[in-house]
Amino acid sequence: MNDETREAVMTATHRALCTHGFADLTTQRIADEWGKSKAALHYHYDTKEELLRTFLDHLLAKFESRLACESADPRVRLDTFVDAVFAPVEADDDSREFAVALLEIKAQAPYSETYRDRLAALDERMRETVAGAVRDGIEAGHFRHADPDDVARFVVTAINGAHVREVALDESPSEARRLIEGYLDDALGRDPATEVPA
Amino acid sequence: MNDETREAVMTATHRALCTHGFADLTTQRIADEWGKSKAALHYHYDTKEELLRTFLDHLLAKFESRLACESADPRVRLDTFVDAVFAPVEADDDSREFAVALLEIKAQAPYSETYRDRLAALDERMRETVAGAVRDGIEAGHFRHADPDDVARFVVTAINGAHVREVALDESPSEARRLIEGYLDDALGRDPATEVPA
Repeated sequence: MNDETREAVMTATHRALCTHGFADLTTQRIADEWGKSKAALHYHYDTKEELLRTFLDHLLAKFESRLACESADPRVRLDTFVDAVFAPVEADDDSREFAVALLEIKAQAPYSETYRDRLAALDERMRETVAGAVRDGIEAGHFRHADPDDVARFVVTAINGAHVREVALDESPSEARRLIEGYLDDALGRDPATEVPA
Repeated sequence: MNDETREAVMTATHRALCTHGFADLTTQRIADEWGKSKAALHYHYDTKEELLRTFLDHLLAKFESRLACESADPRVRLDTFVDAVFAPVEADDDSREFAVALLEIKAQAPYSETYRDRLAALDERMRETVAGAVRDGIEAGHFRHADPDDVARFVVTAINGAHVREVALDESPSEARRLIEGYLDDALGRDPATEVPA
């Protein structure tokens, strides 16, 4: 499968998830969003689970590409991370609908090693990003001393919580974003005024 | 229905949720756990949704009773809250299985006003408890100044995140508990050594 086809199938999967939710997702519905037959879809992906595994890999790759921040300044890298986490997955995204589907996938993780592995990889990548920036920021004297792994785990835990709150309580993620940024300011002694691109 | 019957049905619902998960929960399975017929169960509850609404009210009441802390000391009230949140729901609880079922209910909240209302009530109660203790602790000079509502929302968001991490990543909630307690120490200037029951 060429990159263009793969990208089109991933976009169709995203749309089908947003429209029908995870519980009612079928390969027929993904094929419909793609504008091709179910047979054509099954030529590339044997099962719905294989398709969803690829989709979770695709999400992880998208997130990676957003983190590809050239800046050496750990303060900028931390801001880029927060932007990447709270940005919609697709440009035309109804991000609430996608958040709903993603929480259904997380709730199904106990029943699927495939989902669990991908979610664990995404989680590890998020924590590494924050911990790396915190560590470098402390070394460079931008941040006050803190345990980089603890700060990272707490920030990512709060991000996980923001996701549940958006879905289960219909709370805007901007509430949690403000609190997470405030926590980073307090924990690291960040002065927002000094944060300029390197 | 007398209190004893209600309690027995609630315990049966909890067990059926832990054994079968939310997606495969049926009134037949709840009746089986209760040890009575499905007809007997439907005599009290018309639908599965009505039963689950009652079950969520029951959870909220259980949580309330755990918070019934006589202490006037806001430091003790905050500790009681953290204990209540991280304790198992039932004495014989397999708390991981219950966490799985509860995340499925949260993921279904966008499709059910009943679930959403109950989850919102539980969330509000949790935030009020933390905010009240923080406010009183600041007034009494135990805690340094902080915005009580912001501290409460951030703590409850991290608790929501701990719940997702337990289910989707199989992470022990004790990790998040340690970080939440550390956050409260830092944000409020709590000195653990001074925390003795009033």
